[in-house]
Amino acid sequence: MADRPRALLAMSPEFLHQLFPEPLMRRLAAVLDFDPSFIARDYTEPAAKAALAEAEVVVSSWGAPMLDDATLAGAPQLKAVLHAAGTVKWIIGKSGWERGLAVSSSSGANALPVAEYTLASILMAGKGIFQLREDFRKERTFALGYIHPGVGNFGRTIGIVGASKIGRRVVELLRPFDFTVLLADPYVEAAEAAELGTELVELDELVARADVVSVHAPDLPETEHLINAERLAAMRSGTVVVNTARGRLVDTDALTAEVLSGRLSAVIDVTHPEPLPAHSPLYDLPNVFLTPHVAGSHGNELSRMGLFMVEEAERYAAGEPLRHRVDSETLGRQA
Amino acid sequence: MADRPRALLAMSPEFLHQLFPEPLMRRLAAVLDFDPSFIARDYTEPAAKAALAEAEVVVSSWGAPMLDDATLAGAPQLKAVLHAAGTVKWIIGKSGWERGLAVSSSSGANALPVAEYTLASILMAGKGIFQLREDFRKERTFALGYIHPGVGNFGRTIGIVGASKIGRRVVELLRPFDFTVLLADPYVEAAEAAELGTELVELDELVARADVVSVHAPDLPETEHLINAERLAAMRSGTVVVNTARGRLVDTDALTAEVLSGRLSAVIDVTHPEPLPAHSPLYDLPNVFLTPHVAGSHGNELSRMGLFMVEEAERYAAGEPLRHRVDSETLGRQA
Repeated sequence: MADRPRALLAMSPEFLHQLFPEPLMRRLAAVLDFDPSFIARDYTEPAAKAALAEAEVVVSSWGAPMLDDATLAGAPQLKAVLHAAGTVKWIIGKSGWERGLAVSSSSGANALPVAEYTLASILMAGKGIFQLREDFRKERTFALGYIHPGVGNFGRTIGIVGASKIGRRVVELLRPFDFTVLLADPYVEAAEAAELGTELVELDELVARADVVSVHAPDLPETEHLINAERLAAMRSGTVVVNTARGRLVDTDALTAEVLSGRLSAVIDVTHPEPLPAHSPLYDLPNVFLTPHVAGSHGNELSRMGLFMVEEAERYAAGEPLRHRVDSETLGRQA
Repeated sequence: MADRPRALLAMSPEFLHQLFPEPLMRRLAAVLDFDPSFIARDYTEPAAKAALAEAEVVVSSWGAPMLDDATLAGAPQLKAVLHAAGTVKWIIGKSGWERGLAVSSSSGANALPVAEYTLASILMAGKGIFQLREDFRKERTFALGYIHPGVGNFGRTIGIVGASKIGRRVVELLRPFDFTVLLADPYVEAAEAAELGTELVELDELVARADVVSVHAPDLPETEHLINAERLAAMRSGTVVVNTARGRLVDTDALTAEVLSGRLSAVIDVTHPEPLPAHSPLYDLPNVFLTPHVAGSHGNELSRMGLFMVEEAERYAAGEPLRHRVDSETLGRQA
């Protein structure tokens, strides 16, 4: 096919075959004309520079060099960037948006595993399972008893902080359960929240009412310590804090004090700093489930991110509208 | 209301207010005529005997004495047993079924939390989260890396063993995810399995194909060690075994050998014996998530079981068909 758009791969090479296993690579090569054995890591390097000068499409992922303004000046044919990863904030310079590059990302694909981890955490922590497991491991005995005041997933109130892609997917996934879902997001109207099946509330009301508070806001200067000491103090005893977004959104010291006292529980996949120092009590406390930033795409979930961009390349080549195009207008308030 | 049916409470007293918090107790008292301060624990005791002799309805739960044939002979008015718990196998004697007692149970309500725990386990274990958490706790450092071969919830195959109430609910809950679901159940036809969105296979095929094998079969003599050494050996390396049903369904020694070698992982809420001896490696292995028989109703989930039987009492009093009536014909193959 002589008319396939010229394209260029740009990413850390170790991800290539995880993102695009053989069947996906074949689909990509059917619609884009690129050298599968060449992966750009530095656009000032001659071979990369030459390839970029002719490329109409860049297929990128984690570890891709930035298409900054100077680089873009040397990419006159470039029309589309298909980023098989999440945020494109660090991938495209200002002039790229100004000249109207079509930029798509697999953040929608990456939202799925994060939402799945969050759902599982809410169900597990809402029943006190993580703590019960730790207690059982320590005591190695139990009486079959069915009264554990304060636990259980019947009629619980779940507070979702941020109607991001991930936050919205969590809201969808919570529908089959006996939950009331609160939503706090400054960019969402009450009618839209109601359509989602949630009740729109201010964040301060959310933290006071929810049995589980799950954070899905973007990491921006104004969201640093969105969950601060005051909001943690406003949570009822027994409340579970779930953070699968970014560590900076939660005041780590304040959260540590609250879980150390046993007043709150937490499921934390991201922290600030990351990882936490080895002496942090969050590693060992029975009421904290701490994981090493793994809620996002891992293992075979990388190929889902690849698939999203292969399908996008197929749409591009067919002249169809792109489905995962990033809106540069709202980029400033995205993760 | 002079025409409310006479009724009698029978259960371990400590469960009463968890099952029937004040608002539910008021609804129950609005449709049934019973002494809320009297709870039968032994039908040979004079007060219980006298109350049972007049009762048209027994509202029971865990710890209720059995309505065996001798007891039923002294309960000529009895027409309905509303059991706010799971199985009624140990609650009703043969003559009760013969005389056509209406027996309802909250096993449907109890299926929900078990299915929720199972779903959460599948999502967590499918991503290797439990193991990653243990490794992180031990090593206290990580490199942000996205390649964990063998993990991930994209395109996985989940094997459901047993189309019980719980197994069917798990199948429903798995629908939003990128899973292929296999079902093994000797009483289900291929057409029904397909309607459920599953592929009906023999158990031997299921264990060989599934990435996660989740057991939801009843505990019967013929299901003892349904997951035996041979079937465990037939599972591929990395397969996760989930047991939220009954400990006897899985050969504990064979499973212990497979998880000790690291070949398989497991999420186990029930074991045989129960609890396991303190020296069992299942408490500490990083690839085993062991909990103390807590997947069923706990905490506020008890009031869901109460609610199911309050609604059933309302139907009974109104002369409407019961919704949770136990079918004595299939009792022999139920949990």
